[in-house]
Amino acid sequence: MQRRAFLQGAGAATVAFGAGVGTAQAKPDHKWKMVTTWPKNFPGLGTGANKLAELIGQMSGGRIEVKVYGARELVPAFEVFDAVSRGTAEMGHGSAYYWKGKSEAAQFFSSVPFGLTGQEMNGWLYYGGGMELWQELYAGFGLVPAAAGNTGVQMGGWFNKEINSVDDLKGLKMRIPGLGGEVLRRAGGTPVNLPGGELFTSLQSGAIDATEWVGPYNDLAFGLYKAAKYYYYPGWHEPGTTLEAMVNKEVFDALPDDLQAIVLNACKVVNQDMLAEYTARNPTALQTLLDEHEVELRKYPDDVLVKLREIANEVVAEIAEKDAFSRKTYASYQKFLTNSKEWSAISDLAYLKARDQLSG
Amino acid sequence: MQRRAFLQGAGAATVAFGAGVGTAQAKPDHKWKMVTTWPKNFPGLGTGANKLAELIGQMSGGRIEVKVYGARELVPAFEVFDAVSRGTAEMGHGSAYYWKGKSEAAQFFSSVPFGLTGQEMNGWLYYGGGMELWQELYAGFGLVPAAAGNTGVQMGGWFNKEINSVDDLKGLKMRIPGLGGEVLRRAGGTPVNLPGGELFTSLQSGAIDATEWVGPYNDLAFGLYKAAKYYYYPGWHEPGTTLEAMVNKEVFDALPDDLQAIVLNACKVVNQDMLAEYTARNPTALQTLLDEHEVELRKYPDDVLVKLREIANEVVAEIAEKDAFSRKTYASYQKFLTNSKEWSAISDLAYLKARDQLSG
Repeated sequence: MQRRAFLQGAGAATVAFGAGVGTAQAKPDHKWKMVTTWPKNFPGLGTGANKLAELIGQMSGGRIEVKVYGARELVPAFEVFDAVSRGTAEMGHGSAYYWKGKSEAAQFFSSVPFGLTGQEMNGWLYYGGGMELWQELYAGFGLVPAAAGNTGVQMGGWFNKEINSVDDLKGLKMRIPGLGGEVLRRAGGTPVNLPGGELFTSLQSGAIDATEWVGPYNDLAFGLYKAAKYYYYPGWHEPGTTLEAMVNKEVFDALPDDLQAIVLNACKVVNQDMLAEYTARNPTALQTLLDEHEVELRKYPDDVLVKLREIANEVVAEIAEKDAFSRKTYASYQKFLTNSKEWSAISDLAYLKARDQLSG
Repeated sequence: MQRRAFLQGAGAATVAFGAGVGTAQAKPDHKWKMVTTWPKNFPGLGTGANKLAELIGQMSGGRIEVKVYGARELVPAFEVFDAVSRGTAEMGHGSAYYWKGKSEAAQFFSSVPFGLTGQEMNGWLYYGGGMELWQELYAGFGLVPAAAGNTGVQMGGWFNKEINSVDDLKGLKMRIPGLGGEVLRRAGGTPVNLPGGELFTSLQSGAIDATEWVGPYNDLAFGLYKAAKYYYYPGWHEPGTTLEAMVNKEVFDALPDDLQAIVLNACKVVNQDMLAEYTARNPTALQTLLDEHEVELRKYPDDVLVKLREIANEVVAEIAEKDAFSRKTYASYQKFLTNSKEWSAISDLAYLKARDQLSG
């Protein structure tokens, strides 16, 4: 996934303008606009934003009414941050790595290559100091941030040839934005950036050799398996991408305590709900891809993964050199990651191997 | 963890009676009692129940005030279900496998050996039909259930000898209740059931050879590492235990829409929050166990895990034979599990191996 993906990805732009839901109450005290970086109703991400608006309406008994706007309905995708910051909209939904122009550290609040999983992101944000750092960063822009969705582990992507060695990455023209793209570049490939809406035709015409998107649920919806004969690879570059909600801080601070609690907790509900949705829908979509569309799964050889990881560690560590805040955020994230690896070795990783992999 | 663990585990019973929190509002419309199966303020589980009460108070602006009662403060741990069912308390917090006497199928709503992880449980419950089954079961008892916490993968436990083969399990006297205990029994061991409060002395005296509890965070708090020279093993019997909240259905149905939404969504928030807490605190506690207390980690040989898994599959499948509802629940759970395994092989499992395990 990432960035420009959504700039022109608004294929759903014909959908009616705004569709926020409140519960039946004559007069809302607060009428909010939520601008988003997603095409309206985009499965998982856009529908998650809709759900957030709905929940705030329900729990507040209609005292807050939130209208959701898809990318470019009110502002372009990548003006969401500024629009909420200056109060054009009260609320936004996106993902923090889109705002790395404000601070490189923002990427830690979304996902970084070979970084924390979705479950670990929640551990770091809620109990590991991550949320406080995020709040500190966004407060400088008059914003209150909240985690509000997670995709889980994203797939590595679709390739027109098998990747059997690091050499096979050399010259590979792949649509992969952000930090993952930088890792590919240093491994000898050519990362390109294309909006989601252009992936299918670019694959089909051979303009690119490979692309990543999100995972089976979203990749199936985009029909990527139809573009050409492609091999499907597991992911390493976005291992648990956190989506975000942001609220204009003046607007938020003016709310009574109960409505503040409702807004922040609605974000938490959506944060969990979206991960649950991907966790349930990816397996089914994967089955459809494998059984009905005869997609061929492959895995990277170990030496390719080790090389990508080595480069990724360098790329991520360089963020720490940008400024004092980035350094402090990197240190906090890295400490949590180191501890999490030790724990996952005897919990999730050990368990999943025992459950799914040992033959007998 | 499991069952009788908490019957006499109420070491914190000196804590003041009730401590629910509402926000400042003169007169709550609803004064609720929440009875729990945990010792008052038990880390993670009991504090999660406290947080649930607090959230309901905050989001409702004090219209609902919930007082939390530890096990035996109002009713014993294993009368929580009946107490809420008959309206002695409006709300309860526990875990569904405690109520397998009502239906064997209840165990699927907590955790089963070699079953779904915490993240997958949420997928099944919210997007895989699990919640509807759970509601159907509890409606028969006048209860509305909700997932309200998760421990993540629990540890396999503490052993006074290394387990190098299936033979080493023969005659092993281990505190491990429920389905996990039945698996051990069929593998030749002797499962025993002891309350959490007796684990330490039973280990120390040699009355038992081994015990499981929860994981580093809770095991460290209990001081199990001090009981004797023990080896610490990863888990397979409770891979992502869901805690539950239940509300008396008449009470719930009488609430206005906004308060119903607040109660159910507060449960969702706590469901995610507790897993985040364990995900953050287990790694730190593990480090303390390893570095300060020189605990020795071991892993089961593959053939032991394969054997335990084979037996576990039989034990879990037998639940389906109990009655029509159990059969239908098993079928739904099993289908989700099968799909999840295929997906985890190329998502979480593949990713964690690439991140944490490949050397290079």
